[in-house]
Amino acid sequence: MKVFFKEINITSKYRTELIDISNYVEDYVYKSNINNGFCLVYTIHSTVAIIVNEYESGLMQDIITKVNEDFPKDVEWLHNRVDNNADSHLASTFMGPSKVFPVKDGALVRGIWQNIFLLELDGPRKRKVVLEVMGE
Amino acid sequence: MKVFFKEINITSKYRTELIDISNYVEDYVYKSNINNGFCLVYTIHSTVAIIVNEYESGLMQDIITKVNEDFPKDVEWLHNRVDNNADSHLASTFMGPSKVFPVKDGALVRGIWQNIFLLELDGPRKRKVVLEVMGE
Amino acid sequence: MKVFFKEINITSKYRTELIDISNYVEDYVYKSNINNGFCLVYTIHSTVAIIVNEYESGLMQDIITKVNEDFPKDVEWLHNRVDNNADSHLASTFMGPSKVFPVKDGALVRGIWQNIFLLELDGPRKRKVVLEVMGE
Repeated sequence: MKVFFKEINITSKYRTELIDISNYVEDYVYKSNINNGFCLVYTIHSTVAIIVNEYESGLMQDIITKVNEDFPKDVEWLHNRVDNNADSHLASTFMGPSKVFPVKDGALVRGIWQNIFLLELDGPRKRKVVLEVMGE
Repeated sequence: MKVFFKEINITSKYRTELIDISNYVEDYVYKSNINNGFCLVYTIHSTVAIIVNEYESGLMQDIITKVNEDFPKDVEWLHNRVDNNADSHLASTFMGPSKVFPVKDGALVRGIWQNIFLLELDGPRKRKVVLEVMGE
Repeated sequence: MKVFFKEINITSKYRTELIDISNYVEDYVYKSNINNGFCLVYTIHSTVAIIVNEYESGLMQDIITKVNEDFPKDVEWLHNRVDNNADSHLASTFMGPSKVFPVKDGALVRGIWQNIFLLELDGPRKRKVVLEVMGE
């Protein structure tokens, strides 16, 4: 059994933003030479999420709109006394820091309309994502 | 270490629907003869989610009602100019394409009130779910 | 390859409550002597979730407030005819029963502001969380 790790660095430009990281993940799976196993995509931040859906510009904007509607910035959360980003933490809590994908026959398993996105919730910032590929 | 994959095919009948796939998953874990490891239940679609909760007909209807309330169809999302199912994509994005379960002593670990459901969000359609069991 | 399991027992005091289980998870990863692999944190209950975010008392209260706003108790759900906790099941369904973490160089990978919480949604109750560490 083999386990490989890679850290990728992403710089976001906006407060709420979708950044497609599918190619980073897919390339790393190919380079790992693991035939069968899994890939864990994990962000170490508490104001970011990893999500999966279609790369279509309208939908990507809709996701941002929906996140901002469901977790609006102008609410008097207690955490805003410490740092003015409670909405970002709440969205990250609900949407989660990671996704797991099968790796089969040397390739990441995902659907045609499934891209992997870093969802920035408190940008612009420099962000890290840990990729782990484990298998044989 | 061993890794096994199976693809299961599900045909949904309604636009929003919960389909219990617990038996498929549990049976495949038994047949894999893996004693200790994990099972990844992954759907390759972007208008479907995999969720876990109690198999109780009232609750199953409540989940559908709640999804439809939180992600209503009659909203003018940008994605609807491409394909009239932005609400389905949004719900799938928020709820996620997979769940991971422990496999211990040759059996899937889950609670008595934890069934595994494919949540159809844009049916009726034919759907695929990838089951992966990995361990020893 | 090695696989280890541990069950931890948590007693909640309130109906909705965040209980930090980071130390349990981190300690078990250390004791497992697994260098590289993953740790799955899985709860067997359908009215609990496992979430990840910052340990800050204001934010922890905000998360509880947000969960109670998004999944209010006083709604006439069908499941309430069976057991008066449909809101708890719905929140658990949306937020999920587990999280997966990388294990690298003998330690759990998580960010400085990422603590691991059991989110009690129908307490006070006795709860179980399964920890699985797998790797080499």
